[in-house]
Amino acid sequence: MSSVTELLHTKYPLVQAPMNWATDARFVAAVANAGALGVLGPNAGLSEMVHGSSAHERQLQAQLDQVRTLTDQPIGINVVLEPDPAPHMNSTLEVAFANGLRYFAVVGEPDQAVYRRIKDHGGVILARPLTPTVANAKAAEAYGADILVATGYDEGGILPQHFQGTFTVVPTMADAVSIPVLAAGGINDARGVRAALVLGAQGVYVGTRFLVTAEAPVAPAAKETLLAGSYDQVDLVSHDQRSLMTPGAKQLAARFKETNDGRAIDQIIAQRGGMLPGLRLGQVDDNIISTNTGLDLIKHGGTVAELVEELMEGIK
Amino acid sequence: MSSVTELLHTKYPLVQAPMNWATDARFVAAVANAGALGVLGPNAGLSEMVHGSSAHERQLQAQLDQVRTLTDQPIGINVVLEPDPAPHMNSTLEVAFANGLRYFAVVGEPDQAVYRRIKDHGGVILARPLTPTVANAKAAEAYGADILVATGYDEGGILPQHFQGTFTVVPTMADAVSIPVLAAGGINDARGVRAALVLGAQGVYVGTRFLVTAEAPVAPAAKETLLAGSYDQVDLVSHDQRSLMTPGAKQLAARFKETNDGRAIDQIIAQRGGMLPGLRLGQVDDNIISTNTGLDLIKHGGTVAELVEELMEGIK
Repeated sequence: MSSVTELLHTKYPLVQAPMNWATDARFVAAVANAGALGVLGPNAGLSEMVHGSSAHERQLQAQLDQVRTLTDQPIGINVVLEPDPAPHMNSTLEVAFANGLRYFAVVGEPDQAVYRRIKDHGGVILARPLTPTVANAKAAEAYGADILVATGYDEGGILPQHFQGTFTVVPTMADAVSIPVLAAGGINDARGVRAALVLGAQGVYVGTRFLVTAEAPVAPAAKETLLAGSYDQVDLVSHDQRSLMTPGAKQLAARFKETNDGRAIDQIIAQRGGMLPGLRLGQVDDNIISTNTGLDLIKHGGTVAELVEELMEGIK
Repeated sequence: MSSVTELLHTKYPLVQAPMNWATDARFVAAVANAGALGVLGPNAGLSEMVHGSSAHERQLQAQLDQVRTLTDQPIGINVVLEPDPAPHMNSTLEVAFANGLRYFAVVGEPDQAVYRRIKDHGGVILARPLTPTVANAKAAEAYGADILVATGYDEGGILPQHFQGTFTVVPTMADAVSIPVLAAGGINDARGVRAALVLGAQGVYVGTRFLVTAEAPVAPAAKETLLAGSYDQVDLVSHDQRSLMTPGAKQLAARFKETNDGRAIDQIIAQRGGMLPGLRLGQVDDNIISTNTGLDLIKHGGTVAELVEELMEGIK
């Protein structure tokens, strides 16, 4: 099989996860210049909600224009699979195709039609099922995915619902498919990178650890909260979201324990803007701050370039 | 710090987890003779419930007498911490002390008084909090534990309630304490052992993978179910137990999803004898069969000696 660095034309087999509200052109270009694959994520470059397809397309185009002034390295874009008519997904794909982007981090259950559209435009597909299973991993490969992202329950963000940790999901998926696997979930230091490779991954997909880097478009208060936090202060607020126990998150976690109604809590969080108010705007006390389960391994911030070198210490 | 093999006087830094109902003298001696630490677990050698302290002591003594005819290597014993008057724990300790046992796999929140009793008898303590946290790991070390077992959510058995996978709990605990850490949860092949060491563990603590070995006192039907099973067929039946979806387990899982009342389901399972009917007696269809999340990595049975060599391939 081709290596991840051959497929992505990067120095390192490292992909930056397209964390919602926490990417922008400057950050993604910094990742690309550091030798990894930077990925423009949902709401890239924004600090407020934007509505409508044409506004979304203009915003994305502006981000891509800015990336081009900052790096000549390849970058990727996040595509969240949606049911028809899929307005957001379609406008993302159209802008990406028009700009000749090649790397697509596609999140959701493998979708043969969408994969084919991307392949028809010469795209490279990093398939990331929200909940990896042997069955959907094999489907992703059969539908043309180039790389599989195996996400463990150790991750930050929207959690897999199969309760399989990074330690076991990575070798399981590496055995299930012939395409390269990227390990995701809890990779915060060089030990995690080396362990992922030992477990059968060909590279890594890193989110939470990037949040505290200098270039990440994350509010200083949120960075400080993450750097000061310990996983002993983290809990589930719903079936698929965990957070540092800010006062606001503590209320949500208590309600979740009492009612077990995760969907109601997910709706509250969505109505408040998801990661926008806490992470992007720094209104930490009232909102959730998502993190992976390796929070104690995040000991300092630093630049993107420093982090990439630190993670990849000893890796070709 | 002393290495695990120095502390345990074993060839390999490998400890067999004291799986309930799934150990006996022959099995534990086979583990010891293979160069790892075999541990007599709860209900060792039994295939029915035994009531009362003196019956328990007689049974345990008979197992220890039998071990001595089968190996001259060190073995360990499991101690489950109990609140006073702790009849089961106390009778276990008394028999162990009377027989000069040295290795104690102590499960539960760190307890200074019990640790001291064991140390006063020259014991070596492997402390295993059910839910490892930085705080209870530091407490275990302060109270005199010699080795910390860091159990991730990838494990089989009674699950930690902190949702921290093996991938992240191991480096977190390795950073929190100065004593050696054993990684537990999802270690089913040599990749898992090597990854655990890379993540900062000094050794491994393996349960589920031993269940399918030739010498394990597990019913053939249960071994076959585990060997044929995939993690795609596993789900939670309560907050702290997962099982292969046998018909009986499927009913429990459905009830758990509907009611979220894990305690009621744990009581049903306990009334039926826990792991006794499914795992030990092979009444698979009506009962739970616990497994770790790396079930797809268990591809064959083999002897204990073959498994130990396979896991430790390339490890001194």
